[in-house]
Amino acid sequence: MEKKETSLGLTAKKTGDMSAWYTEIIQKADLADYSSVSGCIILKPYAYAIWEKIQQAVDTKLKAMGVKNAYFPLFIPEKLLRKEQAHVKGFSPEVAWVTEAGSTKLDERLAIRPTSETIMYESYAKWIRSWRDLPLKLNQWNNVVRWEFKHPVPFLRTREFLWNEGHTCFATKEEAEKECLDILNMYDGVLKEHFSIEGVKGKKTDHEKFAGADYTLSIEIFLPNGKAIQGPDSHHDGQNFAKAFGIKFLDNNGQEQFVYQNTWAITTRMIGVLILVHGDDKGLVLPPRLAPLQAVIVPILFRDSKDKVLKEARDIKDKLAGTFSVFLDDRDEYNPGWKFNEWELKGVPIRIEIGPKDLEKSQAVLFRRDTMKKENVHLKDIPKRVEAILEDIQSNLLKRSKRVLEENIIEVKTMEQFSKAIEEKKLVKALFCGSGDCEAEIKEKTGGAGSRNIPFGGKLVTGTCVGCGKQAKFNVLWGKSY
Amino acid sequence: MEKKETSLGLTAKKTGDMSAWYTEIIQKADLADYSSVSGCIILKPYAYAIWEKIQQAVDTKLKAMGVKNAYFPLFIPEKLLRKEQAHVKGFSPEVAWVTEAGSTKLDERLAIRPTSETIMYESYAKWIRSWRDLPLKLNQWNNVVRWEFKHPVPFLRTREFLWNEGHTCFATKEEAEKECLDILNMYDGVLKEHFSIEGVKGKKTDHEKFAGADYTLSIEIFLPNGKAIQGPDSHHDGQNFAKAFGIKFLDNNGQEQFVYQNTWAITTRMIGVLILVHGDDKGLVLPPRLAPLQAVIVPILFRDSKDKVLKEARDIKDKLAGTFSVFLDDRDEYNPGWKFNEWELKGVPIRIEIGPKDLEKSQAVLFRRDTMKKENVHLKDIPKRVEAILEDIQSNLLKRSKRVLEENIIEVKTMEQFSKAIEEKKLVKALFCGSGDCEAEIKEKTGGAGSRNIPFGGKLVTGTCVGCGKQAKFNVLWGKSY
Repeated sequence: MEKKETSLGLTAKKTGDMSAWYTEIIQKADLADYSSVSGCIILKPYAYAIWEKIQQAVDTKLKAMGVKNAYFPLFIPEKLLRKEQAHVKGFSPEVAWVTEAGSTKLDERLAIRPTSETIMYESYAKWIRSWRDLPLKLNQWNNVVRWEFKHPVPFLRTREFLWNEGHTCFATKEEAEKECLDILNMYDGVLKEHFSIEGVKGKKTDHEKFAGADYTLSIEIFLPNGKAIQGPDSHHDGQNFAKAFGIKFLDNNGQEQFVYQNTWAITTRMIGVLILVHGDDKGLVLPPRLAPLQAVIVPILFRDSKDKVLKEARDIKDKLAGTFSVFLDDRDEYNPGWKFNEWELKGVPIRIEIGPKDLEKSQAVLFRRDTMKKENVHLKDIPKRVEAILEDIQSNLLKRSKRVLEENIIEVKTMEQFSKAIEEKKLVKALFCGSGDCEAEIKEKTGGAGSRNIPFGGKLVTGTCVGCGKQAKFNVLWGKSY
Repeated sequence: MEKKETSLGLTAKKTGDMSAWYTEIIQKADLADYSSVSGCIILKPYAYAIWEKIQQAVDTKLKAMGVKNAYFPLFIPEKLLRKEQAHVKGFSPEVAWVTEAGSTKLDERLAIRPTSETIMYESYAKWIRSWRDLPLKLNQWNNVVRWEFKHPVPFLRTREFLWNEGHTCFATKEEAEKECLDILNMYDGVLKEHFSIEGVKGKKTDHEKFAGADYTLSIEIFLPNGKAIQGPDSHHDGQNFAKAFGIKFLDNNGQEQFVYQNTWAITTRMIGVLILVHGDDKGLVLPPRLAPLQAVIVPILFRDSKDKVLKEARDIKDKLAGTFSVFLDDRDEYNPGWKFNEWELKGVPIRIEIGPKDLEKSQAVLFRRDTMKKENVHLKDIPKRVEAILEDIQSNLLKRSKRVLEENIIEVKTMEQFSKAIEEKKLVKALFCGSGDCEAEIKEKTGGAGSRNIPFGGKLVTGTCVGCGKQAKFNVLWGKSY
């Protein structure tokens, strides 16, 4: 056995220095690497395979909702980007500009898309003529660039990232608002069913909504360092862009009307969230539906029984391979202990160990990554048990995520309770008046806790604002943001 | 019935003004649109759905070959792009440069990737340590930008396009060269099986090879205007980039060696090729495996039998929907004739017509787009016939493409025959000495016919160069290039 250049296990603890743990796991589990382009990362095959599974889950659901994929140019002429005022104000500090091509200076600067509203809506205005052209529901899977000047963090804050961006138009506000919520629920379904992550669905306060939107719906996710991070979101834009870009249609009565619009997205940031929510001190813990490998077989090899054990290991692989993504780790240069560590680090949901003693008993050992527990399984029962354990891991991780979320949201009545909870790394629920000034003051008093969203399904709000004592309008989720 | 803004059918003839026909079909079949970014197009849903099918076909084959997908940054720092001399010389006239972000001028210009060798190989040099890290076979599906100053043509010549780019490293030249050819054959399989297109596989002359490669393998495709267009290609880079970027490994004997590399790609240009090869004066003709819709059902509706006919049409749809992509066109606002034209324009392989008279005979009419022929089919036989006809269209289009190719390659011995064949819009096969000067002279004499490639499987070359009369080295395919 030979040692790799870096030691295999993690040295940082998740419960200790989470940032150090995160940085280490990304390198050691072979998820991403830095490049010589500041603020941009390389998605290595293991992370990209997770992204492909996320894409597939979302894309399948979008297609079932009647959304079609398309592709619009990477570049946005400067004058087009400037058409909607709130929008350009929100994005222009972060825009990367192309000013030269070959040896020619361009007449007009071209923005690298930070998001594609402006380039898409110019076409929408041309394409949409009558109510028959509605709804128009297009989506893109592409790369966008937002030139953040804050410290970059792989997946969570990078200057280029991958995402889907949906841009839909409807004849009526009702239809648009219904879709805005349907899409949020679709994303929430993907989070629950694929990520095994429970989040908080709600509406952003005006202060935190998307640049150009009437309102923003979001899913907020609790991170183990006590902060909240925004997951996928869905924005109802009303007629803001429609008016700026002239997206009009003739209705049933021959009257000209502006369309109502939504935009919505999920990004590669969610890979970072996945790592943070489920990972532990041993490494990644991947939910089976997003795991590039669902099971790995590690044969325990001794010279005199090697052939027999390998043969059985191959049999197991062949039986599983049609249904699950499985890898037989028969590398000679590493011993079983080393392999166990590596696959635990990479978060493979199930490990199947088989050695000569197991073979005598016609069994193998099944190890599950989420609970680190082992069980002996008869050889003929392996496919059935693998299926059952994978399902159990998927739902167990979701239950765990839900429990952690519930344990970490504290309802408070006073600013004293509020600050204490934030210090104890909790999220807070508290009544709020809705004023931007009051929100800014709360943020200052609590060392940075802002409104995350106004969770759905809250009771009728009666009471006073936790910040200013005036009549409250909303019951808000608060927390520091990643 | 209501008229659309533009008339439905094509006014240009493919056999007349092919360029006008191409421009018209792209708009009318709803494949692409122009944007306000000069030289960039919008891939509308119908074209993007074709691209998704191309991606899926290639991606499945690549994964089976052990290639893994990854994602590298869009940006390449200028000094990195300049590391390999032949490469930078080939690309720098077409590079789009980012020089500003937000309100900050960047210290170093960033190229938008025209191709990702340089940004990827910087990492490869870091990642590869020993023979155990080889082969390294990574692929990206992404967007690239080449700022062409020639007149843009949708799909065929655009400043941004989508592609796959594979970048592989091997310990030995033999392994690398084998993969280079395997990949070309993989692409050729996709062309034959999915595009129904027969091309000419071969090796580019030195004069036409990729900037930075030892040699380039390509598939050249004949277009109905007598020109050739390059399809997918596969480059063997030898150790050129390995030496420029220091991509070294310790071999079995502990000796440091440079890796051998390949790069290969298929692009959205192939959508343009697909349109040009199979389309006709009625519109697109799509091979079933790349068709977003494989069958469309058009019910013939009269007031007294509407319900019955619609019910049967829905039944047919339900029976087909699990296996084929099928659409029931029950729109009220268009009559059957209008719908027939629309779906012919969009190249849907099979149209199923059903009206009250068909219903009486328990049959439907199946129309196939490639031959424009109709047949009556008993209702219970529809799924079976649809399957058989789709297969037949797929192979018929390939046969047709093969026949057209063979009819349009003329072997010549003299420059007189050569020029005559080119004037008659043929491709030419002729012996060639291999000299770049001679190639340039031939191009001038023939009004622009250059070497396309040196087709595989040619006999031992004996004879003299068609251009200069010196000893010939290769039997070359010549033609004007799109």
